[in-house]
Amino acid sequence: MNSVRIGIAGLGRLGRRHAENLAWRIRGAKLVAACSPIAAELEAAQRDFGIERLHADFEAFVHDPGIDAVVLVTPTALHADQVIAALEAGKHVFVEKPLALSVGDCERVQAVAERHPGRVAMVGFVRRFDPSYANAMAEVSAGHIGRPFLVRSQTCDLNDDSGFFVRFAESSGGLFMDCSVHDIDLARWMLGAPRATRAFASGTIALHEGLAQHADVDNGLAIVEFEGGARAVFYASRTFAHGHETQTEVIGTAGKLLVGHGAPRDRVVLSDSQGVRHRAVADFFERFDEAFERELQAFVNACVGGPAVPLTLADATEATRIGVAITRSLRSGMPEAV
Amino acid sequence: MNSVRIGIAGLGRLGRRHAENLAWRIRGAKLVAACSPIAAELEAAQRDFGIERLHADFEAFVHDPGIDAVVLVTPTALHADQVIAALEAGKHVFVEKPLALSVGDCERVQAVAERHPGRVAMVGFVRRFDPSYANAMAEVSAGHIGRPFLVRSQTCDLNDDSGFFVRFAESSGGLFMDCSVHDIDLARWMLGAPRATRAFASGTIALHEGLAQHADVDNGLAIVEFEGGARAVFYASRTFAHGHETQTEVIGTAGKLLVGHGAPRDRVVLSDSQGVRHRAVADFFERFDEAFERELQAFVNACVGGPAVPLTLADATEATRIGVAITRSLRSGMPEAV
Amino acid sequence: MNSVRIGIAGLGRLGRRHAENLAWRIRGAKLVAACSPIAAELEAAQRDFGIERLHADFEAFVHDPGIDAVVLVTPTALHADQVIAALEAGKHVFVEKPLALSVGDCERVQAVAERHPGRVAMVGFVRRFDPSYANAMAEVSAGHIGRPFLVRSQTCDLNDDSGFFVRFAESSGGLFMDCSVHDIDLARWMLGAPRATRAFASGTIALHEGLAQHADVDNGLAIVEFEGGARAVFYASRTFAHGHETQTEVIGTAGKLLVGHGAPRDRVVLSDSQGVRHRAVADFFERFDEAFERELQAFVNACVGGPAVPLTLADATEATRIGVAITRSLRSGMPEAV
Amino acid sequence: MNSVRIGIAGLGRLGRRHAENLAWRIRGAKLVAACSPIAAELEAAQRDFGIERLHADFEAFVHDPGIDAVVLVTPTALHADQVIAALEAGKHVFVEKPLALSVGDCERVQAVAERHPGRVAMVGFVRRFDPSYANAMAEVSAGHIGRPFLVRSQTCDLNDDSGFFVRFAESSGGLFMDCSVHDIDLARWMLGAPRATRAFASGTIALHEGLAQHADVDNGLAIVEFEGGARAVFYASRTFAHGHETQTEVIGTAGKLLVGHGAPRDRVVLSDSQGVRHRAVADFFERFDEAFERELQAFVNACVGGPAVPLTLADATEATRIGVAITRSLRSGMPEAV
Repeated sequence: MNSVRIGIAGLGRLGRRHAENLAWRIRGAKLVAACSPIAAELEAAQRDFGIERLHADFEAFVHDPGIDAVVLVTPTALHADQVIAALEAGKHVFVEKPLALSVGDCERVQAVAERHPGRVAMVGFVRRFDPSYANAMAEVSAGHIGRPFLVRSQTCDLNDDSGFFVRFAESSGGLFMDCSVHDIDLARWMLGAPRATRAFASGTIALHEGLAQHADVDNGLAIVEFEGGARAVFYASRTFAHGHETQTEVIGTAGKLLVGHGAPRDRVVLSDSQGVRHRAVADFFERFDEAFERELQAFVNACVGGPAVPLTLADATEATRIGVAITRSLRSGMPEAV
Repeated sequence: MNSVRIGIAGLGRLGRRHAENLAWRIRGAKLVAACSPIAAELEAAQRDFGIERLHADFEAFVHDPGIDAVVLVTPTALHADQVIAALEAGKHVFVEKPLALSVGDCERVQAVAERHPGRVAMVGFVRRFDPSYANAMAEVSAGHIGRPFLVRSQTCDLNDDSGFFVRFAESSGGLFMDCSVHDIDLARWMLGAPRATRAFASGTIALHEGLAQHADVDNGLAIVEFEGGARAVFYASRTFAHGHETQTEVIGTAGKLLVGHGAPRDRVVLSDSQGVRHRAVADFFERFDEAFERELQAFVNACVGGPAVPLTLADATEATRIGVAITRSLRSGMPEAV
Repeated sequence: MNSVRIGIAGLGRLGRRHAENLAWRIRGAKLVAACSPIAAELEAAQRDFGIERLHADFEAFVHDPGIDAVVLVTPTALHADQVIAALEAGKHVFVEKPLALSVGDCERVQAVAERHPGRVAMVGFVRRFDPSYANAMAEVSAGHIGRPFLVRSQTCDLNDDSGFFVRFAESSGGLFMDCSVHDIDLARWMLGAPRATRAFASGTIALHEGLAQHADVDNGLAIVEFEGGARAVFYASRTFAHGHETQTEVIGTAGKLLVGHGAPRDRVVLSDSQGVRHRAVADFFERFDEAFERELQAFVNACVGGPAVPLTLADATEATRIGVAITRSLRSGMPEAV
Repeated sequence: MNSVRIGIAGLGRLGRRHAENLAWRIRGAKLVAACSPIAAELEAAQRDFGIERLHADFEAFVHDPGIDAVVLVTPTALHADQVIAALEAGKHVFVEKPLALSVGDCERVQAVAERHPGRVAMVGFVRRFDPSYANAMAEVSAGHIGRPFLVRSQTCDLNDDSGFFVRFAESSGGLFMDCSVHDIDLARWMLGAPRATRAFASGTIALHEGLAQHADVDNGLAIVEFEGGARAVFYASRTFAHGHETQTEVIGTAGKLLVGHGAPRDRVVLSDSQGVRHRAVADFFERFDEAFERELQAFVNACVGGPAVPLTLADATEATRIGVAITRSLRSGMPEAV
């Protein structure tokens, strides 16, 4: 098997995680290039991963003849144009979620991708690759809960006093685009990809008053209606006290599945004067450790002609379309057409 | 201590449960009279509980000089007038929830009750008397989760193939008035009784197509907004496969409480080729066994001058007001003012 | 139904619990007499339960013509003689566990009971009446775990710094006779009452050094061998930090049942900076609340000709026989014949 | 960093797992040689891992100048001599547990290892490298449960109808040497490595009658006494119906830790007409997936001068010494000195 030569753009916290996986754990991949406007990140790339092909300039990076594929862990606002540039340069592309903050940008990417059917283009909806979510989907597919018709899903982060996400609010697209986009994708996946018709959202600021100036909230609820009668309800929070608790429930006519409840860090239970307790995972890095590896393995496998990646750009576009409608509803206070 | 002489009206399944508690378990109470238009129920009252004062006619019942208090387990449509009649006859009144299906009826009852301050008037929001809910409220009051700002609460019943609730849909007020009214009351309780401002609902029919002709659903979601920023989201289902799962989550700025998750029937876990599992409680009778007793004990205690009951008619009115707005939203598809 | 007129001897903490149940919750019973050498207990009996027939002297009590049955909550050392006296006075008898600390005493009681077949004689192995244990036994009986062949059972108390049980060590019979006798009875019940052949025990003092002078321990382990190959292992502790955790596991050829794991106080889970936790029940009073009531109801039902009580004096004798062998092994360090 | 050139001996199921990790996931390692008497295994080594240095003969393998270290996944009976040969050939050695079935063999290995202080010699007590066990040990070390004085630990396998372990009984050393040796090592680790003084065991055959001719059982219990008062109780089973459940409880003076309870396969809970359940891990491969990788990473790190491996040959000798005493007790029926 020829290795896929990979270049990574963006070496922040998540970028490094991907780089570590690509360097040491993904079969069939060789991490050979890096791109960052930050010199320290490029130095680290060379020092820690032995990467020789270092680019400060994205254009040069994307046309580097020494790479077959790029992994983009860059700000969301850059995603669409960068994916397009990479596809047009003949590279396979893995890009972090969300694909873009507007449906128009997503559709631009889709149009370009259609003209490059030989290139893999994959958005990092990492949760589909988590063993628990994958097992849950297998149960749904096997009919073990009958016909699924309702999804309840949440992404709730441990409160971050530093207020990082407040400063980040403008470019992240807000709570629902940043967090719930995963839940949206999972709901569509579990429900068999029905078309969403309407969304209604409501939220509140529990702790981070600074969000008000961005028309954002730190706790939000949304109901989404789908054709055929399926429904989803999402909850996103920035202010959990015990850890990062990602949870998804799929309710069917013959049973229900619940993924991620309680967010145990490990298999340890401590009983003492506080009661009987487990510690929760601290963040999505800890929670989706294994999934990050599996998603890149799936990407690399697809690059060398293995199974197609199990999610399409159209899935990413739909997630953005629903996320946008939810965000619009949060601001208008009214249900919005999706 | 003089016993409170009690008459019960309505001896269906829940009526019998109350009668058993009154006859055998409530201190300070004597179950001495029964009222029912159904002869068999009166016969059973005499045979099983030794009740001598039997009434087919409600007017005669409510003016029976041998009783001090009435317990009304009658159809919801009758509640308001019956409570008023009982108060005006000088009796203490316990009435099953909801107090009425319209706010106007609730307010009529409140007005009469205000003219009879010496009479106890209590609505059966039984969950407040459940030990787990009471313990949760104690934690909230002690500040253990900081400031509560979000409640997620559900009432989900084991699917009943007989379709009883389909036939009952018209008189029950529909899914939200029948089931969620408990969750509404709990949310107000846990959140410190803020005023609700808007409600939005959406639902679907998963199994019971017959509900369509009653503009009802068998699975429904609702978001309620409160003054001051608190939010609640409710889920009600008639179609659970594993049992009756009542669950309430109260989320605060320093932690969260979850009541009722998994609905274990008992403390038994079975491990076999199916996995590791517990059985779930079958219905609210099994789940709230102890609470049914405690609520009547609280009522009887109040009748003899003990502590006032911890919930007012105004609470019941607010629950109806919110439930009505949710139900209106389910039909209009738009947010409705509460 | 004629009520059974009951006298209670011993009104300490557990005695009062039984008195409350007999006075207010047990159908078919009337608590009419009390016996205690402690004047304050008799006064309380009169004041709190309206008991008129008060006895400082056990002989007078047991021959009181106004009572049909006695409930004995007296020191273990007195059990055998008191049960015999009550049976010979023609009374039904309920006595707290253990029946006696020696097999000889148990057998003396059995011999007398055989001469009074019309009198009910029941030992308070309360756990058989706990709904969870009863449900577990129903699963075993239904064959859901195949053939049961191994029981692991524990009785572990919240540490009591007051050292009450240290002073009590001599008269309680030690850790295994005091605590494990319940586990022994449960194991025999679940395993189909096989004959025990050998016992081996080992223990340690974790906190309460004062036990050494009584040849007792505060944490003990014991293995019991039964004819036919079944085995049991018991654990008893006086030093748990989180609460009272009674747990029993029954392992069969097709599955296993676990009763009581984690000892949740209620259905509440708190998530905060400490993790995700529930509080544990504090003591056996809280844990076996409902069972205490059910066992006395079963006793009273048997007194009026209802179903025979589901455990015999022979069961109590066997529990003592095994407990004695375990205690002997703890001291000898060698396996002891049962 | 120069890679450690590794040769693996034994390519059965566990051998292949180690080979996969060495080939693809362990940083600083290069899997370059394989040894097996089975031609098909060598062919697979070449085909699947690209290994060029293939040995049918162990002597040739161990003297292969192209390798720095060997990983031995061979029958237990061969361990001692093979480890000695490898050390004397100047190689680092990782050997599967148990080190040997007799204390004498363990001590022979230790003596040789002491003469080769520059060579790493590590026994595969994989559970120490499991994240949950490591986290539990960190809590113990931090004093969160006070002074640990009791360990309850079990290794219970899903029943294997094929009876593989029956045929394997003679060479495995029996139930306790095969399974409980892990629990023994964990108990020593958690308790601070006290010296064991006595062991008592008892067992039964629940399903696999063929074990009788090997003086073995399919379910066994053992109590071990340590100097200073600590105690351990072990349970091993070959006949679980729901999966592989490895569980360890460490009880201290201020709390307790429980690792592995319920053996959930993942974070999925299914609620249906069977109740509320999770699936259990099927076997130790699934349960200790991550630990297998971590232990080899620790070995390789030590080979290149990183931190010493956190368990010594003396630990392995002690585990065998205790396991041998337990096995002797199972046969004699009497406590045996360790």
